[in-house]
Amino acid sequence: MQDFVFHNSTKMIFGKDKETLVGEEAVIYGKKILLHYGGGSVKTSGLYDRVMGSLVEQGIEVFELGGVKPNPRVSLVREGIALCKENNIELILAVGGGSVIDSAKAIAAGVKYDGDVWDFFEGKSEVKDCLPIGVVLTIPAAGSESSSGTVITNEDGWYKRATGHNSMRPKFAVLNPVLTYTLPPYQTACGITDMMAHILERYFTNEKHVELTDRLCEGALRTIINYAPIVLENPTNYDARAEIMWSGTIAHNDLLGTGRIGDWGSHDIEHEISGIYDIAHGAGLAIVFPAWMKYVYKHDVNRFVQFANRVWDVEVDLNDLEKTALAGIKKTEQFFVSIGMPVTLTEVGIGEKHLGEMARKGTERGPLGNFVKLQEADVLQILRLAQ
Amino acid sequence: MQDFVFHNSTKMIFGKDKETLVGEEAVIYGKKILLHYGGGSVKTSGLYDRVMGSLVEQGIEVFELGGVKPNPRVSLVREGIALCKENNIELILAVGGGSVIDSAKAIAAGVKYDGDVWDFFEGKSEVKDCLPIGVVLTIPAAGSESSSGTVITNEDGWYKRATGHNSMRPKFAVLNPVLTYTLPPYQTACGITDMMAHILERYFTNEKHVELTDRLCEGALRTIINYAPIVLENPTNYDARAEIMWSGTIAHNDLLGTGRIGDWGSHDIEHEISGIYDIAHGAGLAIVFPAWMKYVYKHDVNRFVQFANRVWDVEVDLNDLEKTALAGIKKTEQFFVSIGMPVTLTEVGIGEKHLGEMARKGTERGPLGNFVKLQEADVLQILRLAQ
Repeated sequence: MQDFVFHNSTKMIFGKDKETLVGEEAVIYGKKILLHYGGGSVKTSGLYDRVMGSLVEQGIEVFELGGVKPNPRVSLVREGIALCKENNIELILAVGGGSVIDSAKAIAAGVKYDGDVWDFFEGKSEVKDCLPIGVVLTIPAAGSESSSGTVITNEDGWYKRATGHNSMRPKFAVLNPVLTYTLPPYQTACGITDMMAHILERYFTNEKHVELTDRLCEGALRTIINYAPIVLENPTNYDARAEIMWSGTIAHNDLLGTGRIGDWGSHDIEHEISGIYDIAHGAGLAIVFPAWMKYVYKHDVNRFVQFANRVWDVEVDLNDLEKTALAGIKKTEQFFVSIGMPVTLTEVGIGEKHLGEMARKGTERGPLGNFVKLQEADVLQILRLAQ
Repeated sequence: MQDFVFHNSTKMIFGKDKETLVGEEAVIYGKKILLHYGGGSVKTSGLYDRVMGSLVEQGIEVFELGGVKPNPRVSLVREGIALCKENNIELILAVGGGSVIDSAKAIAAGVKYDGDVWDFFEGKSEVKDCLPIGVVLTIPAAGSESSSGTVITNEDGWYKRATGHNSMRPKFAVLNPVLTYTLPPYQTACGITDMMAHILERYFTNEKHVELTDRLCEGALRTIINYAPIVLENPTNYDARAEIMWSGTIAHNDLLGTGRIGDWGSHDIEHEISGIYDIAHGAGLAIVFPAWMKYVYKHDVNRFVQFANRVWDVEVDLNDLEKTALAGIKKTEQFFVSIGMPVTLTEVGIGEKHLGEMARKGTERGPLGNFVKLQEADVLQILRLAQ
């Protein structure tokens, strides 16, 4: 087991109607807040009014910045930073999914920095401090509600890059499963894929003695696999939505990565795809992950056998471990298909054109991944396997 | 799933030699600290010197209070409160196991309270605020290093009572598995039993839709069951000690209890036993838990079947679910025996004499447990089953 520091101080407030408590939590950090959100759905659903009511009740002055898009853009982040600086904002409240929270995190870091916020994403500078962030989560997927990271897209060259710091973890996050009832099936499935990918990135490690975290990972994966078809069939099943929502947080709050070095190659490859094509992150992961698995499984067949057996109930064939490993990969791919995800680039209309560019851009700062270090040629082969 | 708030902000610093970082963490909270510990083993092991060195290096003024006993006493807690008040202590650093940490927590709460600290344990007052607490853990067992609770014994009547508040969670905890190499087998096994009991108390719930936390509980239990014989056979196996140590924290940091109401009847019954007889808490739990299981399993046979199947690999006999449930209970009892724990009161020399008194004292503030509410007569029957 590797040495580690685990410090996740996000206060999770989980349950029905809990968004009405957001004012009480927010006022702890100040009386001037930036309400950050995406499109109009928070308004049509009535969520905006409930959140506003709770904030106003506490005498909070609310500034607003809507318009966050999926794969959130650095241009809006810069706008948010200016707005916060001008108005001495004390807390950013993100109401939405991972894109809104990630955008809020980037703003929160940028407010405390004199240079351009993109410096953090290019590795030119490191985040040291942030404005406090609060969350009302509407899409269980990215795990950003208690994670320390953010992913932002720069329209200038369509780079999609990540950065992180412990100060970026939201101070509090409100999780009401009822808010996810209206998520369309495709978006629900993308979220499910994203949270599974967060666990898989941590699961495929070269660290040998990580049984506790292995088993916690397997338990979370099995839960998601069990409840995914239930929420897709019955979107208003509270208990199923609750299991999926809480799993999405656990998948990415860093507990499942303690004591080990995760991979993250598939996420980085996906960022190249959705940086150029603007497809949903979850859909991109459903395409990349099975291809990545097929490309790397021989690096540690036993780990893939354990995955097949403990997560997918594939019986271990001691005379043909590779067959067992491949059966687990097949089950993963079939599962993504079963929840309506694409598993090939062709399905989402992505052809040969930019594959070379993605492989090059993805590796221009060094090889991707840790389980297996992927050079440009490896990434290109994985993208070809995903065609 | 029940609504819940999960807020565990303890910074966990895990790995070899990490106790040398304790000064850096402590100085964040102040320059005057109380070093709280038990017997002489921290001094003979050299740990005291390393911790002191790290504190002094940061210019910290250290006050000392040693002498914490297993089943820590309220008299020493009162002494600690006076010492802190006199010297304007800013942080209490507990170096030891659960007893030392629990004693530190009670002192930390008492310093901020004008009345007598025992009021908290009698339910006459509630903890609202605490001095900050830091931990260097030497015994993985109680999970007190990141839990919100404390258990203290009052010599006046030998009452053993618990209280808790989120402010009691330590600010940081240093976990170095190497520090546990010298734990004697019996104490190691007591710790293992205690952490398993913390999971089992949460596992046996009447809440129906808690699959994620069920599976996390099962994964943690399987890990502990797997590594227990390894650490007993080879006490200096780093990876096994690390798995056990981290499991002890996860077992009791409240994550495994999210969305459900746990039982805690067995803990309360054990407190009556070790309040009077001063036996190790873990040993008491190994005696009580199998008896409790035998007494209550019919209340929800399916849950005990799931436990037997998923934790102990007992095949489900659909024609005789009770047999399956009982096989899981038997496996639990046999496991405790295999690691050297007593499983009957007789083995530890406890006869009939005080059983009635324990049942009465344990239930004088109301029935015990939640899975099944235990009245005085139920507690007495469980104690008889444990004979």
